[in-house]
Amino acid sequence: MSSVTYDVLGIGNAIFDVLVRTDEAFLAAQAMTKGSMALIDEARARAIYDAMGPATTMSGGSAANTIVGVASLGARAAYVGKVKDDEVGRAYVHDIRAARVAFDTPAAAGGPATGCSYILVTPDGERTMNTYLGAAQELTPADIDAGQIAASGIVYLEGYLWDPQSAKQAFLKASEIAHAAGRKVALTLSDSFCVDRYRDEFLDLMRRKVVDIVFANESELHSLYQTADFDTGLGALRKDIGLGVVTRSEKGCLVVEDGRTTEVPACPVEQLVDTTGAGDLFAAGFLVGLVRGAGHADAGRLGALAAAEVIQHIGARPQVSLKDLAQQNGLPV
Amino acid sequence: MSSVTYDVLGIGNAIFDVLVRTDEAFLAAQAMTKGSMALIDEARARAIYDAMGPATTMSGGSAANTIVGVASLGARAAYVGKVKDDEVGRAYVHDIRAARVAFDTPAAAGGPATGCSYILVTPDGERTMNTYLGAAQELTPADIDAGQIAASGIVYLEGYLWDPQSAKQAFLKASEIAHAAGRKVALTLSDSFCVDRYRDEFLDLMRRKVVDIVFANESELHSLYQTADFDTGLGALRKDIGLGVVTRSEKGCLVVEDGRTTEVPACPVEQLVDTTGAGDLFAAGFLVGLVRGAGHADAGRLGALAAAEVIQHIGARPQVSLKDLAQQNGLPV
Repeated sequence: MSSVTYDVLGIGNAIFDVLVRTDEAFLAAQAMTKGSMALIDEARARAIYDAMGPATTMSGGSAANTIVGVASLGARAAYVGKVKDDEVGRAYVHDIRAARVAFDTPAAAGGPATGCSYILVTPDGERTMNTYLGAAQELTPADIDAGQIAASGIVYLEGYLWDPQSAKQAFLKASEIAHAAGRKVALTLSDSFCVDRYRDEFLDLMRRKVVDIVFANESELHSLYQTADFDTGLGALRKDIGLGVVTRSEKGCLVVEDGRTTEVPACPVEQLVDTTGAGDLFAAGFLVGLVRGAGHADAGRLGALAAAEVIQHIGARPQVSLKDLAQQNGLPV
Repeated sequence: MSSVTYDVLGIGNAIFDVLVRTDEAFLAAQAMTKGSMALIDEARARAIYDAMGPATTMSGGSAANTIVGVASLGARAAYVGKVKDDEVGRAYVHDIRAARVAFDTPAAAGGPATGCSYILVTPDGERTMNTYLGAAQELTPADIDAGQIAASGIVYLEGYLWDPQSAKQAFLKASEIAHAAGRKVALTLSDSFCVDRYRDEFLDLMRRKVVDIVFANESELHSLYQTADFDTGLGALRKDIGLGVVTRSEKGCLVVEDGRTTEVPACPVEQLVDTTGAGDLFAAGFLVGLVRGAGHADAGRLGALAAAEVIQHIGARPQVSLKDLAQQNGLPV
């Protein structure tokens, strides 16, 4: 096996976040499903923007948030995702490179604008996302650099990649290369409605061992196995995947591998401000734990710590060095 | 006197904020003066952006932040400031109107881009600003609507307006109209280096009663009177202005009017994150207190409360309803 250049490489929809604090009435008036990610077109994007309050903007995208978290924890990180060469796309490239993430995917010269998500944050801290995929739809297998994938310890993929037509081919190509190089492939199920759209395909990816590690939250697990019973879902997951990690918000997480189950509590949070990125940053911490050879319990603690940091402020990217935070909390990274 | 349509109308440099967390070493490497506002050109803006970390962006501008705070406190607010009709400028217009602020200044069709400020926030919460004025330099007396000014209870002006060439004429025109209509004119001294640039002119504005109310922080007061002694500065201010308000960060504020002095403590803060907008939001609370007929003590408390909200998160615009916050804290607005 050749040497590892990147501890974790993520592939996902490169999305710029437009965050706004709002109230329940706005979600109702806009007929939004609270807590979900809805795909929207340009006209709908315009209508939401016109109706919504003042925005805070920053780079986002689920796997990208995870990868920025991986870098913030001091691990070597790379990202693959498609933006357009427009003002927003250039800001996206600046931000991910400034976070010390290797990023070389060529920007699209033409076509739709860089993707963005209107993220409504209610007073309870829950986020409701409305995503215009834009240039993210232009990601193709040609954007997958075989050498880079083979040199990455873990390839991390988001379920959202199943939405753009050609991205799933990029996903499958990356998995093949990674496995041929003896690497691990991880998948986050992303969103319960996303699971609902691609349930059979996701189960197939797991059962055919296209992916080795799966991250899911409770509602995604319930959606995947169409069950309201958590233990039924967890039992099914255990059979379908080598390593499964289920996050349960303030109840912490469960890690299942073969017959073993490890339960890890959540980190205490002073004030829940915005859950955007909670799952993304949990995955960052857990993956870095794996990379560092930590056990499931410590990997889970690192995930919980990273998630706790990101939900105490607006936005899905860490505001402090997660490596420093981990060290202050006695977790080696 | 005709009726009041707006409780407070603000005039200032319309600036889009590009905020980034950084460390002391970055400020040193970039030869920035910590805590100050430096004017930069396009080349310097590019160099700072290339060197700095991932950004969070949102609308800013000192007087605009104040006016958004006034609206958040439930008072009727209007703003005058110049953006270009570019992507950032349109976002600026969206944000200020979405904050329920009347904003009708026509955007510049050509010329420099919408102004922006690269704001470096160090771990101690202090902010260091680097401002490219851009389209803000295009504000002229033609942008001052006499009817709107005359219908505003208080006209609030920022000292930063002395930087762009033609804005000071707009400033003076607005003051004349306001006084002719029997209104009050308030000025914030903005920044100690700004005071250093325009000391004599600011003193002249106060002594000729072009302005009736002055907001200053300690370092601006020291710069204005070129004294290291606070009481000397305060005594001089008392003679030069009808109503003077001096903010002293965690030591609270002092309000001087004729022979009276009112001291108001700061609000306790759990975690200081980013001081950007502290003075702006203090002014918002104080002005709304004045508008509501509160005494200096309650106006100061309202200012302290609004400032405390804004320094506990990244960015200079309030993240919650300040009216709700005031009511929760027993301050009538």
